[in-house]
Amino acid sequence: MNKCEFMARAIDLAKKGKLKTQPNPMVGCVIVKNNKVVGEGWHKEYGKDHAEINAIKDCKKKFGAKKAIKLIAGADMYVNLEPCSIEKNTPPCANTLIKYNIKRLFCGTLDPNPKINGRGIKSLNNAGIETNVGLLKDECKELNRVFFVNQKKSRPYIILKSAQSIDGKIALKNGNSKWISNPGSRRNSHHLRSRVKGILVGRKTAEEDNPSLTIRLSKKELNLNKGDSIKQPVKIILGNLKKSKKVNKIFSKNSKVIIGSRMLAKNVSGIEYIKYDDKNFLEEFMKDLYEKDISSILVEGGQKTINAFIANNLFDELVLYTAPTFLGKESIQTLGLRAPKSMKHLKRLKMAKVEIFNDDIKTTYFNGKI
Amino acid sequence: MNKCEFMARAIDLAKKGKLKTQPNPMVGCVIVKNNKVVGEGWHKEYGKDHAEINAIKDCKKKFGAKKAIKLIAGADMYVNLEPCSIEKNTPPCANTLIKYNIKRLFCGTLDPNPKINGRGIKSLNNAGIETNVGLLKDECKELNRVFFVNQKKSRPYIILKSAQSIDGKIALKNGNSKWISNPGSRRNSHHLRSRVKGILVGRKTAEEDNPSLTIRLSKKELNLNKGDSIKQPVKIILGNLKKSKKVNKIFSKNSKVIIGSRMLAKNVSGIEYIKYDDKNFLEEFMKDLYEKDISSILVEGGQKTINAFIANNLFDELVLYTAPTFLGKESIQTLGLRAPKSMKHLKRLKMAKVEIFNDDIKTTYFNGKI
Repeated sequence: MNKCEFMARAIDLAKKGKLKTQPNPMVGCVIVKNNKVVGEGWHKEYGKDHAEINAIKDCKKKFGAKKAIKLIAGADMYVNLEPCSIEKNTPPCANTLIKYNIKRLFCGTLDPNPKINGRGIKSLNNAGIETNVGLLKDECKELNRVFFVNQKKSRPYIILKSAQSIDGKIALKNGNSKWISNPGSRRNSHHLRSRVKGILVGRKTAEEDNPSLTIRLSKKELNLNKGDSIKQPVKIILGNLKKSKKVNKIFSKNSKVIIGSRMLAKNVSGIEYIKYDDKNFLEEFMKDLYEKDISSILVEGGQKTINAFIANNLFDELVLYTAPTFLGKESIQTLGLRAPKSMKHLKRLKMAKVEIFNDDIKTTYFNGKI
Repeated sequence: MNKCEFMARAIDLAKKGKLKTQPNPMVGCVIVKNNKVVGEGWHKEYGKDHAEINAIKDCKKKFGAKKAIKLIAGADMYVNLEPCSIEKNTPPCANTLIKYNIKRLFCGTLDPNPKINGRGIKSLNNAGIETNVGLLKDECKELNRVFFVNQKKSRPYIILKSAQSIDGKIALKNGNSKWISNPGSRRNSHHLRSRVKGILVGRKTAEEDNPSLTIRLSKKELNLNKGDSIKQPVKIILGNLKKSKKVNKIFSKNSKVIIGSRMLAKNVSGIEYIKYDDKNFLEEFMKDLYEKDISSILVEGGQKTINAFIANNLFDELVLYTAPTFLGKESIQTLGLRAPKSMKHLKRLKMAKVEIFNDDIKTTYFNGKI
């Protein structure tokens, strides 16, 4: 195996922590001695051991503590993200690598966290450990898009999602949209929900559609173990929704609900109101959500809400499920943005992925570089 | 090899005639004796020998005439379409198969041409040849969508094509659309042109965009041999376009132009006017084009023209190139159809294919079964 292959293995290991590490990044680690893997690990869950520590533990488990220490000394280590230099829930990994006397560290990218950014590498260098930053850089960044956006923008990673017809409509004029997309698409949208810490809808959608905003998939479908619990995302509403019968599904038992609006906050148990003075409080709202550890949100509509996020350039991913049908000119458009001045002023997204669910097409676009 | 594999081989052979057989279907033929292929052929070009005859010739070439006759007698023959029973440019194939005394014929589908439809099979049966119809039926129909539509509907196969933004717009309010899609998409759209006998645009598009409506690809890109010539599609205009400087590209030398409109026909060399009395003459126009051997057309816009085809359910394929950008609510919609009465009345297309050109997505939908 060559260097790229070892790093690719680290990325694969990192992915095993999918959905469990937020707000932490997914990290995988491979220890290599004489071109052979002697230890592998990944960050399994927020608050638990980091990948580097798990790889060392794995080596000890395989070879016994004594031999492991000998193997790790002088070994190469591959990790997709810079080892941390600070103590939060666990001791700084950089110190551990120095203690175990590894020879070289290959890492995909620096940690974008301003408190670390380069400091992990620096302390390794100071201890005489050779470092190489940038191996499979794009793949390593891609893996942790959520974490990179969090660290660089101090706001949640924002995914906008809509189901629409070929002619770009989300509902008939009377608001009816059941169902544009097929069961396969709708099922997939629950997987989308499982990727985030919060689901946001506009006040009108919450009132008119009466959505549950829950993940309705089995543990098996979510690739969870029996012992794991399904962590339902926080429900977030943009605008002054009043607790009423109409919206009972959102307020079902054990739900955590956050409402951001310009109206006076009310004291209702289970609902947190955040009041804003500015008319356009979207950016502020996002920062506040992030401070409440909501590192990622899925915005599910309606049209005005999705447009507000795009118009404010507050989104990282746009996901569209397009069904092979026409809703016509009188129906409600998915997007109703202001037109650019000329063709030279077009904003372009990056097409990230296309998936097919029978006759529906799911397209995922990225907005901007990370 | 089993029966399905022999038929799949016949389909593969048929595809070698791609773009060359219209208005004839693509047909491939495999002759099998003792589970071994002893002859293969396909219909190479309109007016030339049919696939069955070429397979017999191939057998003779490989084994010599005398041995070939012995091999074909008692052999199985696989062909994607029913052998013809009529004489047009060539003698009826069914008679030849009887003459050569094949034992069994496997064909994918009957010939939809009302003059043949079952008659080829009947004459083989009458001569004591065993027949089997329906092997890989769907694939065989799929292969010849154009031909099936021609025969069943007596009109050209109609492909609607548009390039649009994510929010389903084709141009800014001022009509500017250069360029929504990327060079890869635009290049691919020339391949789309190479699939058809005619390219149709509305009067307004012809006047405002001044398009050439030609295939601008090399012979190599079109998979043509050096000796082949690129057959430029006929240019078709819907509505009363007058010959003027503005539209000079359409009237470039050697172009064949057909105009269908309600206005009085004019006598201009190189232009054929067809005059209609009815306001909605689209269906009649299509039948007239078909009678002029235009077995397939590509409709390239603008919005009103594409909508007219969809509203009249006169289309077999819808091709959309979607670029990862937004043109905004003030811009011109790709589609402006009348909304259905309710969600129960939605017309649904079949998603046929998704292709990717950098960040552009090309989606191909089929309308209705063939």
